[in-house]
Amino acid sequence: MDVRELVGQARSGRPRAVARLISLVENAVENAVERAVGNAAGVAGHAGGDPAASRALREAMAELATGAARPYSARVIGLTGSPGVGKSTSTGMLIRAFRRRGSRVGVLAVDPSSPFTGGALLGDRVRMQDHATDPGVFIRSMSTRGHLGGLAWATPQALRVLEAAGCDVILVETVGVGQAEVDIARLADTTVVILAPGMGDGVQAAKAGILEVADVLVVNKADRDGVQATVRELRYMTGLVEAAWRPPIVTTVASRGEGAEDLLAALDKHQAYLEESGEARRRRLARARDEIEAIALAQLRSRFAVLHGDRLDALAERLLGAETDPYAAADDLIAALG
Amino acid sequence: MDVRELVGQARSGRPRAVARLISLVENAVENAVERAVGNAAGVAGHAGGDPAASRALREAMAELATGAARPYSARVIGLTGSPGVGKSTSTGMLIRAFRRRGSRVGVLAVDPSSPFTGGALLGDRVRMQDHATDPGVFIRSMSTRGHLGGLAWATPQALRVLEAAGCDVILVETVGVGQAEVDIARLADTTVVILAPGMGDGVQAAKAGILEVADVLVVNKADRDGVQATVRELRYMTGLVEAAWRPPIVTTVASRGEGAEDLLAALDKHQAYLEESGEARRRRLARARDEIEAIALAQLRSRFAVLHGDRLDALAERLLGAETDPYAAADDLIAALG
Repeated sequence: MDVRELVGQARSGRPRAVARLISLVENAVENAVERAVGNAAGVAGHAGGDPAASRALREAMAELATGAARPYSARVIGLTGSPGVGKSTSTGMLIRAFRRRGSRVGVLAVDPSSPFTGGALLGDRVRMQDHATDPGVFIRSMSTRGHLGGLAWATPQALRVLEAAGCDVILVETVGVGQAEVDIARLADTTVVILAPGMGDGVQAAKAGILEVADVLVVNKADRDGVQATVRELRYMTGLVEAAWRPPIVTTVASRGEGAEDLLAALDKHQAYLEESGEARRRRLARARDEIEAIALAQLRSRFAVLHGDRLDALAERLLGAETDPYAAADDLIAALG
Repeated sequence: MDVRELVGQARSGRPRAVARLISLVENAVENAVERAVGNAAGVAGHAGGDPAASRALREAMAELATGAARPYSARVIGLTGSPGVGKSTSTGMLIRAFRRRGSRVGVLAVDPSSPFTGGALLGDRVRMQDHATDPGVFIRSMSTRGHLGGLAWATPQALRVLEAAGCDVILVETVGVGQAEVDIARLADTTVVILAPGMGDGVQAAKAGILEVADVLVVNKADRDGVQATVRELRYMTGLVEAAWRPPIVTTVASRGEGAEDLLAALDKHQAYLEESGEARRRRLARARDEIEAIALAQLRSRFAVLHGDRLDALAERLLGAETDPYAAADDLIAALG
């Protein structure tokens, strides 16, 4: 099937076309990343890669980006938190809540940490299948390897596909302590950070890194001991920062659907704040800039590898031999682009 | 003090000079990253940044890289794992173990997840201070923000400083589930993945992503319930992969120093494997390539921002208005470099 036809079918909400387009994104990006790595590592047979996949991807993106009625109009909600806090269960709860409102919901489960399984974990998939027969829900897990900016490159494009398919709300779930939640915060309109009480050091560590990116804080598993202490601590810590928006703290028991309405209300309040303050447009512009830049850097990186892999190898040898320094070597590599 | 003098003092192992050089790395990278972000986001007053810091960094790196007697000779050991598994305690145990052998030990605590606290957590700092008066140990936490490849850029340079200061062994500790452990695996000679028994979903999630990068697996807190089940599971999972090196599984109780000798033996065995198989040199070459490429990409990105920030803004506006697509916009940005 040609790409234009595929995009047309995705626009009319056909799940298979949506799935095939997202696979196209994943495969083209993954191919390009592997081509770059393979070349840089001197692996033979990688040089050609799959240029057809890249061409199809470019065509699809051109079609999706310029043919869109209202680009960047879907609400993108990021969900992040340490493993074990109940991200997938919370995602499931939010799917149901938005479906009750009649929204069409897209879910992107982004798992950069999973080179081994090549995707989301089995448990998540099973839970997600509750919605497998609902035509108003598209669920997809993405496993494009994080290295070389693969995810930064692929995720915005997958969002475009889901938006084209008519999703009003897109939930992006990432397994993340560290880089992932910073990246998701740059991608989402609203970032939800999920914690659980009584996770000891884990919570401590998580809080340290994630309060800055949280628009809404959720303490899930609120039927467990220690929930009030965690809420108090979070309230204290969010109070320390001067900001136009102070993240509300919502308690939930996602496995029983408790707190869904409170969470929805907090999300709506943040959405209203975004629109009123002009922050919505700023975030979307920043997302567009990131998207362009990620593609440009990936293209340049692939040029390094494909056209200048030998030079990079030679420079690395010289660096190992103390014959050059990393900045001089980088200058040399950049000069090769010209 | 001029840079050459500073490098000279670091070479003779003066802790203050080592600390100042690592600060130089951090500040120059952080400046450049903020300059890029500031410009891309249209923030006024960022355009100049601090070119003096960049110049000093270049000078220091040239001095360190080409003046080194045996560049890339320090053993770099990465330690990673979910929050709460006892990474810092394990790092402390390894410091003591290597010190008993008479090695000079450098520690780099890399915490990309901590924009809020600006560095490692208090608890870690306190534990690390056990070694504050030992002249054979250099400890430094780095908090350069992960975004824009700041850490990929700064960490190898900090390693150079520690190596110049005579460290035989450098332990790099990262808080990581996701991107971080992939990055650390590319940086380290040996990657140690630390788990704890009975962390439920956390362990499940962690294992999925990290087995591929682990050279040595540690099940810490081995005095807790469930340690044998975790070891059995890991043994089963590592057995599924065909590989020249199968990661050994070591059990420890780092808080009591139990298992230190076993861990050291596993590390030595891996080091011997690296040298015999030629993998040591391959990894160091790959590290050198990554180092050069990370700097080259950072330079290009900063050119986008500094010279072409307005163009990037205009392209982002057009993308939001559905007047272009991300690939065409990226081509336009790359053309501006030429």
